[in-house]
Amino acid sequence: MSEIAKPLARYAAFRRAGDYVFLSGIIPVDPSRGMIVRGFADIPAEAARAIGATGEFSTDFKQGPILAQSWYVLDRVRATVEAAGGGMADVVKLVQYFVNLDHFPLYSRVRGLFFPGEAPVSTVVGVSGLMPSADVLVEVEATAYLPRRQPS
Amino acid sequence: MSEIAKPLARYAAFRRAGDYVFLSGIIPVDPSRGMIVRGFADIPAEAARAIGATGEFSTDFKQGPILAQSWYVLDRVRATVEAAGGGMADVVKLVQYFVNLDHFPLYSRVRGLFFPGEAPVSTVVGVSGLMPSADVLVEVEATAYLPRRQPS
Amino acid sequence: MSEIAKPLARYAAFRRAGDYVFLSGIIPVDPSRGMIVRGFADIPAEAARAIGATGEFSTDFKQGPILAQSWYVLDRVRATVEAAGGGMADVVKLVQYFVNLDHFPLYSRVRGLFFPGEAPVSTVVGVSGLMPSADVLVEVEATAYLPRRQPS
Amino acid sequence: MSEIAKPLARYAAFRRAGDYVFLSGIIPVDPSRGMIVRGFADIPAEAARAIGATGEFSTDFKQGPILAQSWYVLDRVRATVEAAGGGMADVVKLVQYFVNLDHFPLYSRVRGLFFPGEAPVSTVVGVSGLMPSADVLVEVEATAYLPRRQPS
Amino acid sequence: MSEIAKPLARYAAFRRAGDYVFLSGIIPVDPSRGMIVRGFADIPAEAARAIGATGEFSTDFKQGPILAQSWYVLDRVRATVEAAGGGMADVVKLVQYFVNLDHFPLYSRVRGLFFPGEAPVSTVVGVSGLMPSADVLVEVEATAYLPRRQPS
Amino acid sequence: MSEIAKPLARYAAFRRAGDYVFLSGIIPVDPSRGMIVRGFADIPAEAARAIGATGEFSTDFKQGPILAQSWYVLDRVRATVEAAGGGMADVVKLVQYFVNLDHFPLYSRVRGLFFPGEAPVSTVVGVSGLMPSADVLVEVEATAYLPRRQPS
Amino acid sequence: MSEIAKPLARYAAFRRAGDYVFLSGIIPVDPSRGMIVRGFADIPAEAARAIGATGEFSTDFKQGPILAQSWYVLDRVRATVEAAGGGMADVVKLVQYFVNLDHFPLYSRVRGLFFPGEAPVSTVVGVSGLMPSADVLVEVEATAYLPRRQPS
Amino acid sequence: MSEIAKPLARYAAFRRAGDYVFLSGIIPVDPSRGMIVRGFADIPAEAARAIGATGEFSTDFKQGPILAQSWYVLDRVRATVEAAGGGMADVVKLVQYFVNLDHFPLYSRVRGLFFPGEAPVSTVVGVSGLMPSADVLVEVEATAYLPRRQPS
Amino acid sequence: MSEIAKPLARYAAFRRAGDYVFLSGIIPVDPSRGMIVRGFADIPAEAARAIGATGEFSTDFKQGPILAQSWYVLDRVRATVEAAGGGMADVVKLVQYFVNLDHFPLYSRVRGLFFPGEAPVSTVVGVSGLMPSADVLVEVEATAYLPRRQPS
Amino acid sequence: MSEIAKPLARYAAFRRAGDYVFLSGIIPVDPSRGMIVRGFADIPAEAARAIGATGEFSTDFKQGPILAQSWYVLDRVRATVEAAGGGMADVVKLVQYFVNLDHFPLYSRVRGLFFPGEAPVSTVVGVSGLMPSADVLVEVEATAYLPRRQPS
Amino acid sequence: MSEIAKPLARYAAFRRAGDYVFLSGIIPVDPSRGMIVRGFADIPAEAARAIGATGEFSTDFKQGPILAQSWYVLDRVRATVEAAGGGMADVVKLVQYFVNLDHFPLYSRVRGLFFPGEAPVSTVVGVSGLMPSADVLVEVEATAYLPRRQPS
Amino acid sequence: MSEIAKPLARYAAFRRAGDYVFLSGIIPVDPSRGMIVRGFADIPAEAARAIGATGEFSTDFKQGPILAQSWYVLDRVRATVEAAGGGMADVVKLVQYFVNLDHFPLYSRVRGLFFPGEAPVSTVVGVSGLMPSADVLVEVEATAYLPRRQPS
Repeated sequence: MSEIAKPLARYAAFRRAGDYVFLSGIIPVDPSRGMIVRGFADIPAEAARAIGATGEFSTDFKQGPILAQSWYVLDRVRATVEAAGGGMADVVKLVQYFVNLDHFPLYSRVRGLFFPGEAPVSTVVGVSGLMPSADVLVEVEATAYLPRRQPS
Repeated sequence: MSEIAKPLARYAAFRRAGDYVFLSGIIPVDPSRGMIVRGFADIPAEAARAIGATGEFSTDFKQGPILAQSWYVLDRVRATVEAAGGGMADVVKLVQYFVNLDHFPLYSRVRGLFFPGEAPVSTVVGVSGLMPSADVLVEVEATAYLPRRQPS
Repeated sequence: MSEIAKPLARYAAFRRAGDYVFLSGIIPVDPSRGMIVRGFADIPAEAARAIGATGEFSTDFKQGPILAQSWYVLDRVRATVEAAGGGMADVVKLVQYFVNLDHFPLYSRVRGLFFPGEAPVSTVVGVSGLMPSADVLVEVEATAYLPRRQPS
Repeated sequence: MSEIAKPLARYAAFRRAGDYVFLSGIIPVDPSRGMIVRGFADIPAEAARAIGATGEFSTDFKQGPILAQSWYVLDRVRATVEAAGGGMADVVKLVQYFVNLDHFPLYSRVRGLFFPGEAPVSTVVGVSGLMPSADVLVEVEATAYLPRRQPS
Repeated sequence: MSEIAKPLARYAAFRRAGDYVFLSGIIPVDPSRGMIVRGFADIPAEAARAIGATGEFSTDFKQGPILAQSWYVLDRVRATVEAAGGGMADVVKLVQYFVNLDHFPLYSRVRGLFFPGEAPVSTVVGVSGLMPSADVLVEVEATAYLPRRQPS
Repeated sequence: MSEIAKPLARYAAFRRAGDYVFLSGIIPVDPSRGMIVRGFADIPAEAARAIGATGEFSTDFKQGPILAQSWYVLDRVRATVEAAGGGMADVVKLVQYFVNLDHFPLYSRVRGLFFPGEAPVSTVVGVSGLMPSADVLVEVEATAYLPRRQPS
Repeated sequence: MSEIAKPLARYAAFRRAGDYVFLSGIIPVDPSRGMIVRGFADIPAEAARAIGATGEFSTDFKQGPILAQSWYVLDRVRATVEAAGGGMADVVKLVQYFVNLDHFPLYSRVRGLFFPGEAPVSTVVGVSGLMPSADVLVEVEATAYLPRRQPS
Repeated sequence: MSEIAKPLARYAAFRRAGDYVFLSGIIPVDPSRGMIVRGFADIPAEAARAIGATGEFSTDFKQGPILAQSWYVLDRVRATVEAAGGGMADVVKLVQYFVNLDHFPLYSRVRGLFFPGEAPVSTVVGVSGLMPSADVLVEVEATAYLPRRQPS
Repeated sequence: MSEIAKPLARYAAFRRAGDYVFLSGIIPVDPSRGMIVRGFADIPAEAARAIGATGEFSTDFKQGPILAQSWYVLDRVRATVEAAGGGMADVVKLVQYFVNLDHFPLYSRVRGLFFPGEAPVSTVVGVSGLMPSADVLVEVEATAYLPRRQPS
Repeated sequence: MSEIAKPLARYAAFRRAGDYVFLSGIIPVDPSRGMIVRGFADIPAEAARAIGATGEFSTDFKQGPILAQSWYVLDRVRATVEAAGGGMADVVKLVQYFVNLDHFPLYSRVRGLFFPGEAPVSTVVGVSGLMPSADVLVEVEATAYLPRRQPS
Repeated sequence: MSEIAKPLARYAAFRRAGDYVFLSGIIPVDPSRGMIVRGFADIPAEAARAIGATGEFSTDFKQGPILAQSWYVLDRVRATVEAAGGGMADVVKLVQYFVNLDHFPLYSRVRGLFFPGEAPVSTVVGVSGLMPSADVLVEVEATAYLPRRQPS
Repeated sequence: MSEIAKPLARYAAFRRAGDYVFLSGIIPVDPSRGMIVRGFADIPAEAARAIGATGEFSTDFKQGPILAQSWYVLDRVRATVEAAGGGMADVVKLVQYFVNLDHFPLYSRVRGLFFPGEAPVSTVVGVSGLMPSADVLVEVEATAYLPRRQPS
C-alpha cells in the first residue's frame, strides 16, 4: 500500500524539474490489481477505522466509497512524494476534482489526517467525470517543493 | 475588501515555495461574513460602476452575479498577492473555472481591468459545479512569480 | 501549422517565470482562420495518416474529430514550447480536459507520438464544457522546464 | 425551541388513542416564525456544536442544512412527546423520509444523540419531495407508546 | 358511492386489531367499474359543487382531477370506517402521498369538509408514483381508533 | 435464512408496545454477509423455484432481482414476527415501497405465497430511492397484532 | 402601491397612439425596491386576504407566490391605465404568460376581482421563462382603448 | 361548427374597440362539448378531406391532430370575426403559438385555405405549453380591422 | 441590408390598418440568401463594431450570435417601417421573444442604438423555440402608429 | 380476430418471393376499428385468460397492455401466415422490437403458447419508438418458409 | 445520382445469394463527396419539386431534410437494385429506421413515388441513432427477389 | 469458446430453411456461465491481443468492453455457422445493433478480422437497449447462404 502511484497509461508518476516535483493526477485505482477502490474493504482495516468507518452497514455503505477513495489517493500522494525524497510537509499545492461536491466534507476530514501541520494551497472543483469510470469519485493532483540543496 | 482571501477550510490562502507563490483557488465567498457574493450590491459601488453596472434593473439582475463575482475573486487575488509581497504584474498564470462558459466574455472584460499590462497565461474550463453551492459561478486559481532577490 | 498558439483573448500564449515556461490552455482553434478544427480535413494529410485516418467514411467521421483535435493541440504545444526555446522533451506536466472521457484512448495514442521519450506527468479530467463551443472536445495545458543556464 | 410542533395546516400535532400517541409528520419548519430551518444559524449554538458544526465554512455550508434540520425535527419530536406526557424513551417507531438518501448517515448521527437508550423501530425511504418546498430535506413521523396506567 | 373500498388485489380493505382499525391505502380507483377517477364527471354533481367546481372549462380542467380524486378517496375512507362500525371522528391518523405536492392546498380544502371537528394527525410526502398509473395523484392511508367497549 | 432481520444501523428490528409489534422497514440486505440480494442465486434454490424461476436466462435475468428481493424481505418479516412470538397470520398491516411500480405484480405473486389466509391491509407507493443503494427495489414495513393475553 | 409600473429597462411603461394605450408587459417586480414579489408578505395585508390567504402555513407557502404576483401585476396594470387617464373597464385585451400553466386557475380567480364587469379578450400561453429570473411566474401585457374624444 | 368561439373562462370571445376587433386566443377546444379536438374524427369529414386526410391509418394518426386542430381554430377565428360583422379578409394580424414548431408546415398549408387572398401579418413562436392540457398543439390570436364607417 | 423583411411563408411583411401598421414577427433570417444570421460575419462590419464586436475570438464567438441577430432583426424592423412610410420613432410597441433570456442584456444594448429617443412599450418573454431552427435566438414583433393625416 | 394483418399504409401485409413469405412488421393496431390494443378488454376473453389475466385490478392494469399486445401481434402473424397457405410451424425467423425490454419475459410467455413445437430464430432489440404512437409496446416481423412444392 | 450505393466501410453494397439480392442498409450519405444530404439543395431540383418543395423558406427548412433524405436513400435503393440486374418492382421487403417517427408520413409520400405498383412488405421502427451522425434521419434496408432463371 | 450460441430463451440458435441458414440475434452473453462478457478478461488472451488490448489500464478499461463483446459475438456467429455446416465466407448479411454508435469504429476493426475476404452486406442502427441488461453493447444478427447441393 506504500508503493508509489504507478501510472495507468504512458505517463510519469512524478517528474522532478528544478526544485519542484510534479505529480500526475492520482485516482483511487490500483493498477497492479486492476481494481478501483470502492469502499472500506479495499483499504487496510486500521485506515478504515481512522477515517470513520462506523461498523453500521447503512452508514458505511453510503460514506465508505468517498472516505476510502480519499484515503487511498492521499496515501498514494504520500508514497509518491516519499519516493521522490520528500514528505507530506513538502506538498505545497493540491488540485482536487470531485464528481459530487457533497463529498468534500468527508474528503476534507481525511485530508486533515494527512496534513496535521501547515496545509498546502487547495483548489476544489466539481467535474463531469473522472477516469476510468463513474465509480471514481475524486482525483488529486499534487505539487511538492523539494529544493535539491537546503538553503544554508 | 482588500484583505487577503481567508481559507474556507483547512488550507492555506497562499504558500511561497522558492521563487513562486501559489494561491488556493479563490471563490466569491466572504467567509468572515459567511456570504456568497451574488450581485452588485455585494461589492463597493465604485467597483460596480467600473465593471459595467447600468442601473437598469433587468440588465443588472442578469449580468450582476457574474460581473460582481469576477470582480470579487480578482480583487482577492490582488489582495492575496500583495500580502505575499507582490502585485498583479507578478501573476504569471491563471486557471479559471466556470459553471457557465457563456459568462466568459463578462469575466474577461473585468479581468482586463485588473491586468492592464502583460497578461498572465490563462486556462478556461467549464465545470459541473463549484464550492460551496450552485450560486458560485467562477473560481480562479493564480500562480505568481516573486523571486526572493531581484536579479541584479 | 507550426506557428505558436495565438491567444484567443487578452492573455499570453506563454510566460517564462524563472526556469519554467507556463503555457495557456490550448484548444483546437485556429484564431487566424477563425476556425475550430473539426476533423481530418482540417489538419495536414500526413498528420491524419499518422494518427489513424482509415479512409473509411463511417470510422473517420466518428473518430476524426477527437483525433484531429488531439493532434492539433499537441502540435501547438510543440510549436509554442519551441518558440520559448525548448522542445517536447522539456514539457514536464500536462493537464488535459475532455468533454467526453471515452475520447481518452484516442487522444492517448496521439500523445504517444509526440512524447516518444520520457513522458510528462499527466492529469485527466472530464469537464462540462470547453471554450468557445461544444465542438471543442479537448484542452491541454502544458508546463515546461527550461532552465536559463544548464547546471555546470 | 422546546415548544411542541404546531401544525402547519388543519391537522393535530399529536393525538392520543388508547395507549398510543400518534404524531403528525414533522418537518423542519417553524411556523411561528414562518421559516424553514436552513442551517446551523437557525438552531441554538450549543445544538450546532453538539451535532458537528466544524467552524469551517465549506464543510458547514454543505452539511449544515441536513444536520440542523435533523436536530430540529427530532427536537420537536421530543417536545411534542413531552407535551403528551412522555419522553423519547417512549417513542417506539419512526418513519423517516429523505429527499436525498445520502443524507442518512448525517441524520443517523444526530438521531443517536436523541436515543441514547433502546432505539425505536425505523423505516427510511427516499421521496420525491416534502412540504412545503425543496428546501425541506427530511420529515420524521413518530409513534409513542404511553399507556394511561403503568402496569402495576 | 358509499360502498367500502374494495381491495384492488389480494389484500384487506380494513383489519381490526384490538381497539384499532387499519385501512389499506386508498387510491381514486373504482375497481367495480375498472376506472380511475379523472375529474368532476366521475363523482356526484353535488360533491363536485361542494369541493369547488366552477363551471369554467379551463379552471375545472386544471383543478378537477385532484379535487375529484381527493373527494373520492376521503369518501371511501369514510365509507370504510363506517363499515367497520365507526365514523370520520374516529380516524386518528392519515398518511397522504402525492405525486405533485402543489396539489396539497386543493386536497387540504377538501379534507377540511370531511373533518369539520377534531383533525387527525397528518403526514404528507411527495412520491415518485402511485398505483396503478400516472393518472393517480393521491393516496390516503387512514388509521381509526374504535375501542370495542367505551371506557365506563 | 430464518434469522430475524438484523438492524443495519442503530435501530431495533422490532419493538413490542402493548399488544402490537412494530417492525422496522425491511430491505433485501443481509448485513451479516454485507450483501444486497440481487437475484435467484442469492436465495435458496427451492425458494427460487417456488416464486417462478424459469431457468431461461433472459427471463430470469429480468425478473430475478424483484422476485428474489420480494421473497427475501417477506421471509425476513416472517422470521422477525416469529422471533416476537407470532406468525404471518398476526401481521395486520403492510406498507410497501417500490422504486419501480411495474414490479408490483411480481411482488404481489410472491406475497400471496406468504399470506395464504386472511390478508393484511396494504399500502403501496412508488419512491425515489431506498437504502442503501439503487440496487434495492423494495422495502416492506410490517405491523403485527400479538395480544399478550387472549381475551377470555 | 398605486404608482404606475416603472420600466425596468430602457422602455416606456405605456405609450398612447391614437385612441389606444399600449402597456409594456408587466412582471411582479418592484424596481424601486429592486425586489421580486414572492408571496403574501410582499403585498398589502388586505389584498392578501381578498385573494385567498388562508393563514395556514403550508397552503399559503404553496399558493402565495402566484396569488401575490397575480394581484401585483394586475394592480400595476390598473395603476398604469389610471395614469394614462383610464380605468380597468377600458382594458380591452390581455396577453398572459405563465411559466407553469397549473397556475392559471389561481390567477383567474384574482383577475375576476379586477374585472367585475365586461371582461377583456384574453390569450394565455405557457412560456419557458420570464424576466428577470425563475422566481417570476406571470407576465401580463394589456391594451386599453381610451378615445381622446367620445363620439358625440 | 360555425358558432363563435365561446370563452372557456371569464373573458370575452371578442371585443370591438374603435375600428378594431380583438379576439381572444383560440384553442382547439369545444367547450359546449367539453372536448379537445384530437384528430380528423373531431371535425367535419369534408374539412378533413380538404386539409389532407389520406385514409392511411399511420399517416392520419400522425398528422391528424395538428391538421384538425389547425382547421378548428382557424374556422373559429372565421366564425368569431363573422359574428363581429366581418370576414377573414378583415383579419390583419395573427399570433400563432405552437408546442412543437415542426407542426408549422402542416398548419401553414391549412392557413392558406382560409386566407386565399391578402395574408395577414404573422408571428410564430414555440411555447412550453398551452391551455388546458398537453393535447393542445396550437393557439391562434387574431386581430381584425373593421372600421365602423368606410371612408367615403 | 436595408430591404424590407421579406416574408418567409405566405404572410405579409406588414399590413396597414387604419392609422396603425402591424409588422409580422421578424427573425434573423435572410430568405433571399436562404441563410440564418449566425454572427458578426453575417452583418456589415460597421454594424458589428457599433454593437460591440471586440476582435477577441472567444468573446466574439460567444456574444456574436445574439448581438448580430439583434442588430439584424431591428434593422429589418427599421427597413420595414420605412417601407410603410414611417421611421423608428413611430414604433410604439415591441414584443420580443428569446430562447435564452440571458441574452436580454446584449439585445437591450443594441436596441438602445435603434431607439435613441422615446422608447416603445416592450414585452419580453422566454420561449421554447423560434422558427425555423434552434439557431434563431430572437424574434421581434413591432407595431407602428402612422396616422394617415397628421392632426392639424 | 382471425383476419390477416391489414397494412396501415401503402404496403403489403405479406409477399411471397420464391419459397419464402415475408411479412410486414406487425403492430397491435386494428386498422378496421382504428384502434390500438391497450389491454385485456381489447382481446377475446378466453385469450386473456390463457395468457395470464388474474382478475386483480392492479396486476392486470400493469401487465395487461403488453400481454394483450403480445397476443394480438402473434395472433395476426398466425392469421397472415395462414392466409399465405402455411402455419406457425413454418415461421422460421422473428425480429421483435420493444420500447421497454422489461416487457420481454411477459411477451416470451405468450410466444411460447404460439410456438409449442420447434421455435423460430429470434432477435430482440429495444427501440426508441414504434408506430403510430407511444401506446404501442411491441412490433414483430416474421419470415416463413413455405416451399411451393414439398420435397418428395 | 444514379450510381449504386458505395459502402461507407468494409462491407458490400449488395450480395446475391441464390435468387435473392440483399442490400446493405442505406443512409443519406454520399461517400464520394463525403457529405450527408441535408435538404433540397443536396438533391436534383426536379426531384425536390416532385417530392414537395414549396419554395416557402420556413416550410422547406422544416420538411426539406427528411424529404430530401427519403428521396436520396430510395433513389440509391433503386440504383443498387438496377446494378444487380433488377428494378424497384423486384424489391420485396423494406426495413425502415427513423430517429423521429413523426417523419414517417413525409417519407411515406416519397416512397409512394418509387413504388407505384405492388408495394413491398414494410417494417418501421424508431431508433435512438443512425450512422454516422445525428443529421441522418432515416435508413432503409431492402431485399430483392431476382430469380436467376424465371420459372418456365 | 467455439461452441455454438445457445439460445437464452425458448428460441432456436439457427434454423435452416431451404438454402439459407438464419441465426438468432447474438449478444455477448455466455448462458452456460450465466455471464455477460464485460472486458478483455472474459475472452481468450490471444483474442484480446489480436483485437487491440494495449496493456495500459485506462485505455483497456475504456475500450475493452466493446472490443471484447465484438469479438465474442462474431466468434459465436462463426461457431454457429460452422455448426450449420458452413463458414464465415457463407455469411451474406449482418444486422448490427449498438447502444452507442461511437462504438462502431472499434467493432468495425474487429469485424475486419473475421471477414478477411468478401464482406457481407451490413446494416448498422443505434438502439435504446439490448437484452438482458445495459451492459450489453452490441447485438449481431447473421444470415448465411448454404445451398444444400452446390450447383454442378
